[in-house]
This record gives sequence, C-alpha cells and structure tokens, in this order.
Amino acid sequence: MRLEKGLGRAFRTRVHEQLETERWKRKGLSPTNWFLLFLILGSLVLYTAETEREFQASEFRGLTEANVLILIVFCAEFVARLWAAGADERFKGWAGRGAYIRAHPALFMADFLAFAPELLLLSLGLTPPGALRSLRVIRLFKMARYFPTFKLVVDALRSCVQELLVALSLSVVLWYLAAVLLYLAEGDVQPDGFGSITRSMWWSVVTLTTVGYGDIYPVTAIGKVAAGIVAVIGLGTVALPSGIIAGAFMEKFRTRRQP
Amino acid sequence: MRLEKGLGRAFRTRVHEQLETERWKRKGLSPTNWFLLFLILGSLVLYTAETEREFQASEFRGLTEANVLILIVFCAEFVARLWAAGADERFKGWAGRGAYIRAHPALFMADFLAFAPELLLLSLGLTPPGALRSLRVIRLFKMARYFPTFKLVVDALRSCVQELLVALSLSVVLWYLAAVLLYLAEGDVQPDGFGSITRSMWWSVVTLTTVGYGDIYPVTAIGKVAAGIVAVIGLGTVALPSGIIAGAFMEKFRTRRQP
Amino acid sequence: MRLEKGLGRAFRTRVHEQLETERWKRKGLSPTNWFLLFLILGSLVLYTAETEREFQASEFRGLTEANVLILIVFCAEFVARLWAAGADERFKGWAGRGAYIRAHPALFMADFLAFAPELLLLSLGLTPPGALRSLRVIRLFKMARYFPTFKLVVDALRSCVQELLVALSLSVVLWYLAAVLLYLAEGDVQPDGFGSITRSMWWSVVTLTTVGYGDIYPVTAIGKVAAGIVAVIGLGTVALPSGIIAGAFMEKFRTRRQP
Amino acid sequence: MRLEKGLGRAFRTRVHEQLETERWKRKGLSPTNWFLLFLILGSLVLYTAETEREFQASEFRGLTEANVLILIVFCAEFVARLWAAGADERFKGWAGRGAYIRAHPALFMADFLAFAPELLLLSLGLTPPGALRSLRVIRLFKMARYFPTFKLVVDALRSCVQELLVALSLSVVLWYLAAVLLYLAEGDVQPDGFGSITRSMWWSVVTLTTVGYGDIYPVTAIGKVAAGIVAVIGLGTVALPSGIIAGAFMEKFRTRRQP
Repeated sequence: MRLEKGLGRAFRTRVHEQLETERWKRKGLSPTNWFLLFLILGSLVLYTAETEREFQASEFRGLTEANVLILIVFCAEFVARLWAAGADERFKGWAGRGAYIRAHPALFMADFLAFAPELLLLSLGLTPPGALRSLRVIRLFKMARYFPTFKLVVDALRSCVQELLVALSLSVVLWYLAAVLLYLAEGDVQPDGFGSITRSMWWSVVTLTTVGYGDIYPVTAIGKVAAGIVAVIGLGTVALPSGIIAGAFMEKFRTRRQP
Repeated sequence: MRLEKGLGRAFRTRVHEQLETERWKRKGLSPTNWFLLFLILGSLVLYTAETEREFQASEFRGLTEANVLILIVFCAEFVARLWAAGADERFKGWAGRGAYIRAHPALFMADFLAFAPELLLLSLGLTPPGALRSLRVIRLFKMARYFPTFKLVVDALRSCVQELLVALSLSVVLWYLAAVLLYLAEGDVQPDGFGSITRSMWWSVVTLTTVGYGDIYPVTAIGKVAAGIVAVIGLGTVALPSGIIAGAFMEKFRTRRQP
Repeated sequence: MRLEKGLGRAFRTRVHEQLETERWKRKGLSPTNWFLLFLILGSLVLYTAETEREFQASEFRGLTEANVLILIVFCAEFVARLWAAGADERFKGWAGRGAYIRAHPALFMADFLAFAPELLLLSLGLTPPGALRSLRVIRLFKMARYFPTFKLVVDALRSCVQELLVALSLSVVLWYLAAVLLYLAEGDVQPDGFGSITRSMWWSVVTLTTVGYGDIYPVTAIGKVAAGIVAVIGLGTVALPSGIIAGAFMEKFRTRRQP
Repeated sequence: MRLEKGLGRAFRTRVHEQLETERWKRKGLSPTNWFLLFLILGSLVLYTAETEREFQASEFRGLTEANVLILIVFCAEFVARLWAAGADERFKGWAGRGAYIRAHPALFMADFLAFAPELLLLSLGLTPPGALRSLRVIRLFKMARYFPTFKLVVDALRSCVQELLVALSLSVVLWYLAAVLLYLAEGDVQPDGFGSITRSMWWSVVTLTTVGYGDIYPVTAIGKVAAGIVAVIGLGTVALPSGIIAGAFMEKFRTRRQP
C-alpha cells in the first residue's frame, strides 16, 4: 500500500498510524490509542460517579468542565480519523471517506454518537437531559477497535447463530406458555402477580432464567406443580444455548489444531 | 407431481400453493401465510390483553367481534386447507384427505383446536369459560409450519433423547431423595415448608433447578448442610442435560462440515 | 448356559427367568418385574402420603396393613431371588449364592434394606421410628435393575470422573475462600449471617450454586464487591462440570457413530 | 540424578524424599506429607472454629498453644524444605536454592506466608489482628503440591484462556450496560436500589449470574421489561464460558484417545 509523501502528508500518515490499530507497526496499541482507551474508561467512571448522590453533593467542582473537555477530545479524534484516513490510498477523497465509513459503519456511528448529541446541546447553551447523557455508554463500543480477540468469540457465535435463534424462539414460546399456565393456576389467588398474562410474564422470565427473585411465586398446590414443571423445562432454556455454543467452540478448537 | 387442470382446479391448485409452505415456489412465505402468521400473533396479543383488568375496564368495544372474526378466519383456513389438498395427487379423494391428515397429525389437531371448541360454544350461544379460551395458545403450534429451521434443533435433540430421558429420571430420583432428606431434617422446625414430603418437594424442585425463590429455606444447621449438598448435586442436574445437548450439537456441527 | 431339569427345578428356572431381567427372553420386563416395579412406586407413594398430616387425620385405615403386606412381598422377593439363583450353573450351592451376591452387591443391599430393618422391628412388636421408615427410599435403587439405559449415562460420567473430582475439589476450595472473604467483609455488620466462617459457608454455597434464596446477602459496599466476584467465579463452578460432562458425551456420541 | 553420599547427606536425601512428592518413589504420599496435609486441614478447621462465638465462649483452652505449635511446624517444614533441596544436584548451594524457589515461586510464597507474618507478630509479643489471621487460608494453596491431577483441569482451561477472557470482557460490558439501563428505568422509583449506576451494579451482577437474591428487583413495567432482557442475555453469560470450557475439554478427551 503506497502512502503519500510530503511534509503535511507525512504528518497525516503518522496521525493515521497512531489512530488505526491495523496500521500501527509495533506491538500493542499506539500511545494515542492508549490515551483514548483510558479516556473512554475515565469518561465512564465520571458518568458513573455523576449519578451518585454523595458525589453530586460533594465539593467536587470541575465536573462540567471535565465533561466538556472529554467531548472535545472525542470530537477531535473523530475529525482526525476522517482526515487522516486520506493517508491510505483506498480512502482518498470524498468517495474514499465514504468507503472508510462503510468499512466499519458501527464503529463510525459509535465514534460520532460518543460526542455529537451532547456537544450540540451544550454548544446551544442547553443542559443535556439524563437520558441523553446515558448515550455516553456508546463509548464502550468504541473499545471494540482495541480488542481484536473479540473476533475469536464472535466468529464462533456466528457459526451457530441459526441454532441460537431457534433456541431463542423456543424460549419465547415456552415463556408465553408458562405465563398462561400460571395465570390460569394462580390468577385468582394472587391477582397482583398472576392476575393477567402480562403480569405472569414477569414471573415466567424470572423463573425460566433461574434467577428467582422471590418477589412472586406460586402458593397453591396446582400452581406449584405447574411452576415445578416450568422450572425444569427452564433448565432446558439454559442447557440448549449452552450446548449449541459448546458445539460451535469445539468445532472451532478442532479445526484450529487440524489445519 | 402432476396437478389437475381446469378452471376450478386451477384455482384449487393456487390455493394449495398459497397455503402449503413446501408448495410455494418463491422464496419465503406466501402472502396468505404471512397474513395467517400475523393473525396468529395478533390473536394471542388480543388474548393477552383480554386478561388484563385495565384493558377489560377500558372503553374498547369490538373485542368479542374481533374474536369471532379470527375464529371464522381460522375455520376458513382449516376448510380451505383440506379442500385444496386435493390439488395434490397424493391427497385426492376421501382416502387422500386421510393421508393428508396422517402426514402431519399434530399440525392438523392444532389447526382444528385453534377455532373449533370456542366457535362451537359461541354458535350455541354460550360464553366460552376462561379455561377454554386458554386453548388459543395452541395457535402457537400452528406457527411450526412457518419455521422449518426448528428441525435443526429438534433433530439434534432427537439424537440424544435417550440420554436426556436418563438425565431426567436421575433428576426425578434426586428430587424425591432431596425432599425426603429435608423433610427429615427440617420437618419438625418448619412444618409449613417441610412438614411432609409433598411440601418438601416444592423446596426441592426450586433448589435443584437453582431458581431459589427464598420463600422456604432450611434454618437448622443439619438442614443447611443437607441443603448445601442438594444444591451442589443440583448443579449436576443443570450440567448433565447441558453436557448431553452440547455433545449432540457438536456431533451435528462436525458431520455438517465433513460430508 | 445349561439349566437343570426336573419338576421342582423347572419351576425354579421359571422363577429365575421371571425375576432376573437379563434372563427374560421376551422384550421388556417380565410380569413379576412389572408388578415389583409398581409395588416400589406404590410403596413410595404410600410413604409420601403417610408424612402428610391431612392424610394422617383422614379416615383411611389399613395403612399399617398395606405397609406390612409390602414388606412381606419384598421379603418374599428377596428370598425367591436367592433361591432361584441356583437355576443358573454359576450361582449353584452356597458358594454360588456368594458369587451371586458379589455380582451386584449394591442391588443385594438395596433388596435387603428395602424390608429387613422395618420388618424386624415390626415382628418384635415395636413401632419403627420416622428415621427408620425413611430407609424405604432405598427401594428407589432397586429400580436400577429395570433401567439398563442408566448405563449409557453412567459410562459417560465414569470416563470423566477424575476431571469431575478436580472440579469438585476446586469448588470446595472456592467455597471456603468465599466464606472467609465474606466473614471478613460482613462479619461485624451481620453477625447472624456472616458472624463466623461456618455461618458464612451457608451464604457461600447458596451463592456459588447460583440458588440465591435471599435469606442472607451482603449489605456493605465492600461485601457487595466481594460477593459479586464470588458470584462471577461461581458461574465457573457451574460451567466447569458442565463443560467436562459435555466433552465426555461428545466423545461418546462420536465413537458411537464411528465404529 | 546423582545424590550425595555420607551420613549427614544420606539423612538430607531422606528428608528431601519425604518432603518432595516427585522424589517419593512409592505410590501415594510420604508419611511426612500425609502429616502435613492433615495439619493444613486441621489448622483450617481450627481457624474456622476460632471465628465461632460459641466456640470462643467455650471452656476450650489451648487454642493459642495449638496455633503456635502449628506455626512452628510450618516454619520447620519451610526451613527443612530449603535445606533438603540441596540433596538434589540442581538445587545445590545458594544459587541452587534460588533455582529451587524459581521452580515453584507460588508454592514457595504459600509456604512462607503460611506461618511467617503471624509467627513474627507473636514472637514480638503482639496479638495478630483478624485480617492477618485470615492469611491462614493461604495454606490451602500449599495443598496444590499433593494433587497433581489439578493439572488435568488447569491444562484444559489454559488452552481456552483467551476465549474465556473475551467472554469475561463481554460480561463486564454487559454488566455495566445492564446497570445503566436499570438506573434509567428505576432510578427515580427505587433510589435505594437503583439510585445510581454504582447501586444498580449490585442488582446487575446478582441478575446476570442468575443468583437473584431478591433484595432488589424492578417494580415498574419498563424496569421489568429491561430486567427480563438482561436476565435472558445473562443466560448467555452462563452459556458462553460453559460452551468454551466444554469445547476445550472435548478437544482434550479426543486427543487423549487418538494419539
């Protein structure tokens, strides 16, 4: 891959190498990417702290300033990425930038949403509401860039996605049937928990996933029998995806060693 | 497969192609089947809403009318299916219709029970009781026709059905033994929860499936030791079917790629 | 295998064929074994009912009589088995009977304990205490004779028993460490639940098996962090045996198809 | 491997053989190691009992003496191990002792921490605080020496450690996202449980691991829908490591039988 020469272009090439993990020739991440990785984590720690009342009541000022600074850095990263992409022959010019975006559209969206909505509101002098601030968690997806090993697991999951979807569909059918069953069995006795199929569905999902909070459970004999059957079948809901994923990973491990 | 000619017969052939997924030549489902699929889902949404008190108290009228309409459509589908089956050489005449039913008896029953009991009662001027209305969930099984991928998972499960039955039998034995154990350990202290083996069985199933509602749990030292052992063995109850299904899926994935 | 002739000996041979499943030439179980199978189940249903107060208070008499009858039948079965074993060349005479017992010592013990202790006490005119009556559950193990398919699962489990024992040891170590951790974190705050390592162990087993009754859980920040780590590691406690068993079953399925 | 001769040296060789499991020529453990194994277990039983109030209030004296004795034995074992290592050519002299330590640094640390901190404080006339006494659980790791079969499982886990780390990372991301989701959904309604992301995280870990204590759970409709989705995805958190480990064990079992 030929890279452009020239003073400005040499700089652009270096920025490109700093930002794109697959262009970084040395082992690990570039200093810029290490900085960005820690900024992502730091910004999420800040967001988490922001929601804590004790922290809100504290004397800590500079929270808003820190937030604005982070937004600006992510904005600068976004612009720099697009500009520096031109250092690659494939991504030259406007059409090239389009190709760059289409290469990893999800990452591009994550980069954009990581700063744009909040920065826009702030620049208009408005305070971003809580729901919008929660968009900051999208920054987590920016991290996918730094962990190529994710592909190991994603590939194995993709090879059994059809079976997993069938398992999910079966679980949904089971979930509905369990809700109807308990509605019929306990609807009259416990109207708060089982008084309608919609209400029963909460119990049903809590039981089928074997979470079992204990906020609602059957009390009649017939309800307990029905719930017992549902709980046992619920084990299948755990065992089926477990088994499918196991099969896929086994196949993956086997082919890795038998080229 | 030769299809009959003639004006009426051409129509019957088209109806047959619209209704039977394996006769539909284009990709995906026929428009009629899409409509029926959404009607099934819609009728279940309606049934779910019907059980909700807020919805019952609402101003929404036309619920009964909508229900009758759905019953009539399912009745029409049932009759049309049987009539149009004659477009296939194999299913011609009365004997052919019998063969058609025997080809998929479970689907035929689901098609029939999806409308017949309720429509019969309504045509006699009676209001169907709640238990009968719950038969509507059978419509879920009508959907099996539209998801041929279910076969992927069902085949894998069938290949290990004997092992799964053994695992289930072991669980049942374990379940009973755990109930007796806790009845002996806690029966005197907590008569409400462990006062008889039958009562203990509820705790036993809730623990072995690792649901753990927390409505009943041992309080004595000996009971806690016994319950701890039961809970650990209960993990095996989860692990065994999980492992069996995983083994079956692995075998399936392996043979798929090594023809 | 040569069988003895003669009138009395022909009868013994027939009894032997009726009682021993591997000597029964036709498909399924012999009539005698069907009867014994139902008697086992019936005697356990009776025992279960006996523990129920509503049943105790009922007008149902004949419970004691039914119990004595069952004990006598099991006693007769035990004697007949030993006597009829002589129909087999290998098990002739006193030495042969010893060989017969050593062939399936666990089954022999189950056959003996299924009636002996209770019948002995009753014949001495004593009422068997509750703990002794609970020995009746040993009759469940008599059923192993009728389900040869159990071998399918037992064989797979035996092939990975060493790995399962290691997994169990790791779980025990983890269990103790988790108990110490929470004792240190919450011992002062919740003396009832975490006031000593022994107390903490109950919480620890309930969490590691993901049962989670909710009778005791950490309330301090440090305790919640520790409990979260324990819960995540607890998933491994489920995943490890699950994975080991899956590997064993896969191997079993693979060799079954590749002879 | 040549061993030194001479009276003192013959003794050192015998001590070395008694202490190092791989030098013990007969089957099983040497008498000294059996003694040490039981001492480890005994010292932990003592520590567990020490935390029990009923035991503290009991008349049992000699607890402190027993503890000092155990510390001295572990100290003696530590010194003897280092001294006797010289019986092996590789571990001769000071440099050899360094090589001995580097061969199993974790075991060396466990051996040292099993007695040193507490013995030091006691010899200074101070009472070791509770947190320091809890260091005794490190003695558990001394037991690794006696169970070579641990390697069976550790090897299988090592072969899929990368995939397991990815699964763990995915779980951490999921855990944070679930906490943010429920904070947004229920933060206003249940400030105690969901009032900040940090608080939500406790619910999140309890649900994703399917423990489900029931101390905190969503109560609003939107919160229940979100929690249901989280619980279903949480099953994946169980299924993914389960599947990865299963795949690794399968591969292990397969290669064991096909050399």
